Amino acid sequence: MALMKAIEYAQATPEVRAVYDEIMRTRNTDWINNFWKVLANDPALLRRIWENVRQVMAPGALDPLVKEMVYVAVSATNGCEYCTFSHTAGARSKGMSDAMFTELMAVVGLANETNRLANGLRIEVDPQFLPR
Amino acid sequence: MALMKAIEYAQATPEVRAVYDEIMRTRNTDWINNFWKVLANDPALLRRIWENVRQVMAPGALDPLVKEMVYVAVSATNGCEYCTFSHTAGARSKGMSDAMFTELMAVVGLANETNRLANGLRIEVDPQFLPR
Amino acid sequence: MALMKAIEYAQATPEVRAVYDEIMRTRNTDWINNFWKVLANDPALLRRIWENVRQVMAPGALDPLVKEMVYVAVSATNGCEYCTFSHTAGARSKGMSDAMFTELMAVVGLANETNRLANGLRIEVDPQFLPR
Amino acid sequence: MALMKAIEYAQATPEVRAVYDEIMRTRNTDWINNFWKVLANDPALLRRIWENVRQVMAPGALDPLVKEMVYVAVSATNGCEYCTFSHTAGARSKGMSDAMFTELMAVVGLANETNRLANGLRIEVDPQFLPR
Amino acid sequence: MALMKAIEYAQATPEVRAVYDEIMRTRNTDWINNFWKVLANDPALLRRIWENVRQVMAPGALDPLVKEMVYVAVSATNGCEYCTFSHTAGARSKGMSDAMFTELMAVVGLANETNRLANGLRIEVDPQFLPR
Amino acid sequence: MALMKAIEYAQATPEVRAVYDEIMRTRNTDWINNFWKVLANDPALLRRIWENVRQVMAPGALDPLVKEMVYVAVSATNGCEYCTFSHTAGARSKGMSDAMFTELMAVVGLANETNRLANGLRIEVDPQFLPR
Repeated sequence: MALMKAIEYAQATPEVRAVYDEIMRTRNTDWINNFWKVLANDPALLRRIWENVRQVMAPGALDPLVKEMVYVAVSATNGCEYCTFSHTAGARSKGMSDAMFTELMAVVGLANETNRLANGLRIEVDPQFLPR
Repeated sequence: MALMKAIEYAQATPEVRAVYDEIMRTRNTDWINNFWKVLANDPALLRRIWENVRQVMAPGALDPLVKEMVYVAVSATNGCEYCTFSHTAGARSKGMSDAMFTELMAVVGLANETNRLANGLRIEVDPQFLPR
Repeated sequence: MALMKAIEYAQATPEVRAVYDEIMRTRNTDWINNFWKVLANDPALLRRIWENVRQVMAPGALDPLVKEMVYVAVSATNGCEYCTFSHTAGARSKGMSDAMFTELMAVVGLANETNRLANGLRIEVDPQFLPR
Repeated sequence: MALMKAIEYAQATPEVRAVYDEIMRTRNTDWINNFWKVLANDPALLRRIWENVRQVMAPGALDPLVKEMVYVAVSATNGCEYCTFSHTAGARSKGMSDAMFTELMAVVGLANETNRLANGLRIEVDPQFLPR
Repeated sequence: MALMKAIEYAQATPEVRAVYDEIMRTRNTDWINNFWKVLANDPALLRRIWENVRQVMAPGALDPLVKEMVYVAVSATNGCEYCTFSHTAGARSKGMSDAMFTELMAVVGLANETNRLANGLRIEVDPQFLPR
Repeated sequence: MALMKAIEYAQATPEVRAVYDEIMRTRNTDWINNFWKVLANDPALLRRIWENVRQVMAPGALDPLVKEMVYVAVSATNGCEYCTFSHTAGARSKGMSDAMFTELMAVVGLANETNRLANGLRIEVDPQFLPR
């Protein structure tokens, strides 16, 4: 049970519905997931986060599927259950295969391991790695 | 100053040199970075971690550049200074442009933000996101 | 299911009951939450953590409601389900409104985002920010 | 040394200068800190993050000083050096005393401790804490 | 529900069964836990992680029980539910008593607290602590 | 530069000196490290944290060296530079050898890796791991 109630489309104000409509149009779906329905308790927060997601996740210098996999990598690192499920579904819908998913998890696991070896041994940055 | 000394090639045992040689050959470089030189205090640890990195970061279902960017994303999320510098350099050498790097950071930042919104509001996973 | 059983008041030793009584008196409630009932498996741990909570969360230079909201912010950042639920309830009982809660989450989300931008880009501390 | 160069006002494009001007006007200062100067490598990122900070940190249901202290709490929890220095300076400028700062740190420390006791013992959420 | 299905022994390929057999033989048990059954979707990942666990958790300079307790400490710090349950069970089977477990949690909690006091106050490392 | 000044013995109040004296007596040393000298800005915080450290790190069900190594494991996981240096020095003084240190790091790295595999794949806890 979330800490605030989910606002359904039928109960939403026109301001909230406008964001819901944009989400469904942009994603070409006919439903709204709980993340947005809970944010809708604060329409300004809903609008602001949606604008951020829309801009950041749009095609750009990186492929949308790569962005979704980076999102999964961060969510797995932070242990966010909701985000892991939702962005894995997002990556699947953009073409992530089983082999890509397990390989992604392998990279995430290894990075978390070597991050701690570097931090625990307090290894110094090589001058060669500094930007010129 | 790292918590253990860096083992230079000249002082290394044949067992350690063999790993150093593999690293330089695989990466087509003529130097060894501090991470490996500190791990070399424990040759079995050096060998094991190198084998893992070699296997996980090899081309597979994911592009090697994508893997390096995922590594940077995890390292930035964990605040690992060494790994952020070394894997950003790795991604640069594999073709990451300035635009790709700032876009990657944008995704990493946003994922860390929405991870906390989902966790802080304890949002429930939508049944639609569960695997079938 | 917790990893150790919850010790109910009826089964508790006098030493544990003394802490339970203090908690109920300090908080003006008639029940003990699971956190304390599980810590009670180690009466010295229960006593020590309770003394710390009592001292740190008492009115001081910061308002008790501000302290509860800081607690929620840290718990959301760490993804601690139990602490997010319990300290959100605590903040609610001290006067946190819906608007304060969503605004708190907005700050927590943003801080987690910019923390990663600063860490990922390895931004150097401006001399103006150093204490004099 | 940051991973991308800092863009000074004199070298900035009009688009970037417009954001710098807004930051200085909003904060009533005559300098720009490194965080923004590095984000300026990607003008859209600079503009987006600044808009978010401006909106989230404005006065609202929470006091601006409380928001800065929450920012410090999250930054300390995540170990972000840059953000800890910059937002502690921000909180100082808004009136945080020495006593308020050490008390804030005491709450942050305790929350991080009890978060791990709850997570490590896998304590179950009491039904009384669930929202009605 | 995990994001990939668990592969049971009866459905497993000979390659996967070989790892399952090694796990059961090494641990002297007659069942395989979900962690391995989900990794088995990617036989190379299963084999690699198992080899790592086998090597790292074997008796060496540290006692196997100490290693399991370190594993529990890290898992509690990261908030990993699965790992906390599985490695607490592992530590129990190697002799961890109730008193050892609650004392371990006390150390983990305290370390998480003082980590944030040190990071939040940006305390400088004393020269006496640097390795010679 | 820490965010608050270090309070030297010569400038300390009797209340602070009493804690410094206890620390030096308990640890059989003639100097005080920066952590305590910065906490001394808030004598109640200094006293409270010292009492906690003294109690938790005393011999008990776990060996003091094991406790110091658990402290190092948590500090490496959290990326706390100060705590990693200070508790590694503490563990060294209690007998941690080079081989024990690198083996400890191997366990910490592996635990961080498998924590993310379990969290990223959302693996379900086996009923066999639940306490009876």
